[in-house]
Amino acid sequence: MTEIAAAEALLAEARATTDARLGEVALRFQRGGHPAGEAIRYALGTVGKRVRPALVLASYRASGGTDPGIGWLATAVEIIHTYSLVHDDLPCMDDDARRRGRPTTHVVFDVPTATRVGFLLVPVAVEVLCQAADAMGLDLVTRQAIARDLLAASGIRGMVGGQWLDLVAEGQRLGEAELRAIHARKTGALIRAACLVGGRAAGADPTRLAGLAAFGEDIGLAFQIADDVLDATATTDQLGKTAGRDASLRKMTYVSFLGVEGARAEARRMAERAVARLDDARVEATALASLAHYIVQRQS
Amino acid sequence: MTEIAAAEALLAEARATTDARLGEVALRFQRGGHPAGEAIRYALGTVGKRVRPALVLASYRASGGTDPGIGWLATAVEIIHTYSLVHDDLPCMDDDARRRGRPTTHVVFDVPTATRVGFLLVPVAVEVLCQAADAMGLDLVTRQAIARDLLAASGIRGMVGGQWLDLVAEGQRLGEAELRAIHARKTGALIRAACLVGGRAAGADPTRLAGLAAFGEDIGLAFQIADDVLDATATTDQLGKTAGRDASLRKMTYVSFLGVEGARAEARRMAERAVARLDDARVEATALASLAHYIVQRQS
Repeated sequence: MTEIAAAEALLAEARATTDARLGEVALRFQRGGHPAGEAIRYALGTVGKRVRPALVLASYRASGGTDPGIGWLATAVEIIHTYSLVHDDLPCMDDDARRRGRPTTHVVFDVPTATRVGFLLVPVAVEVLCQAADAMGLDLVTRQAIARDLLAASGIRGMVGGQWLDLVAEGQRLGEAELRAIHARKTGALIRAACLVGGRAAGADPTRLAGLAAFGEDIGLAFQIADDVLDATATTDQLGKTAGRDASLRKMTYVSFLGVEGARAEARRMAERAVARLDDARVEATALASLAHYIVQRQS
Repeated sequence: MTEIAAAEALLAEARATTDARLGEVALRFQRGGHPAGEAIRYALGTVGKRVRPALVLASYRASGGTDPGIGWLATAVEIIHTYSLVHDDLPCMDDDARRRGRPTTHVVFDVPTATRVGFLLVPVAVEVLCQAADAMGLDLVTRQAIARDLLAASGIRGMVGGQWLDLVAEGQRLGEAELRAIHARKTGALIRAACLVGGRAAGADPTRLAGLAAFGEDIGLAFQIADDVLDATATTDQLGKTAGRDASLRKMTYVSFLGVEGARAEARRMAERAVARLDDARVEATALASLAHYIVQRQS
């Protein structure tokens, strides 16, 4: 099996395990009879590559974990990602009408509904996180460390704080260092956390945890650079979301600094550095490396 | 000291301890230099009676707790309340331009900013919660129980879910039972949680915890009924927020069912029942009872 085929097999597994669990969570809301149920189900039904769940699974196994309950932890991470997407697509944010080939939540429902759905998904993510910890019988220290990592990744020094900086930066001239700082929060923090919590759930030692976190930081950046390249080069159909948005919003991207070819090379360089971080920390790198390479070679 | 004077002294203490800590948290954001800092500081600066923090302090002490670190737990609860206010005031929700005598966050900044501030306050509340647990040296089981209580109180079966039901119900005819179900979530859940987590932090036994939770449920309802009476009878200046909103939004309230006098009597009855719950569970009731009576007699 080639490395890319291995990554695709892992992503397919992550999709199967995550999608089934997301469906189960959505069903709970539907059964609860709350009027929010339908919109929550729609948001949770957003299809995706499930890169973050695949990273959770791979970092867990690379650290010696074998419990299938890890699928719940992968699902909790994807729910956090989902609520950030719901908000990122709102008219007051990136104003996107399509996401992964479907109309976005605020288009199908309305803006207030989508805003509140995003909010309701926060405690849902925490509930699923508790379920994961119960399923795997994690001790309380590990549980709390995982909860802190994920919350930190979604807060002001993470996802939501990064979205904010990104909005403030729109139409402004940024240096490459500033751009990196924004993306380290906006996309990087949750990808880093996905790798870290997989290791934590498996009881990885501090050196390996640091290696997983460093790997996550580098592939988070590689992911964003690859996204910028795709936005500049792929079609809307290929992406399942509106292509060319960055240029139309006059956003600074890695492509503005490095050009398409330069950005591609930089993404590859970051993926290689990521894998070297694992080797340095003696983390079994096969599956994680295949994901790192997939991330920079993907076509959507 | 009369009972109301005792309640006012406790509220004054809760204001002093909570406001100082909210200021400290706001300062962290300001120092962080994040562009969100100013709006977060404004939202955290919302003045208030600090009923929920006072309930945390009183239920903690009624359960034998003596650590001043409880002030951080009270602050975490108030931050959760604050983020619900920021969202509740948005144009897509209750559309209120004034809150506690000040323009609301979305009026001073704008709607997208206020939406994102609300979001950012969720991880802030969790961070302050962790700080509280560290300050008091709480064990991990207690810590996790407190986190679960507070998150459940803010989720779909709590605050945000209740706000949603409340919006759906606008302009519709409801039965009194439906109205109660909405308010049990919208206002009741967090008030109940405030009482419960104070007891948990002090290591109260299951019987006393159940008593505190039952007390919280009843005063949560009493609080909402008293709110409805005030909305119908007080002036905007007295309330520090727009009076008469319920009638102008054609909202069903306890006053629509019971009339002003009937609603007042029902609020008093719920306060008495709340105090009886404490006695049944052998929880020291003096301070909590004074707060229960304050809640139904307050003029704003």
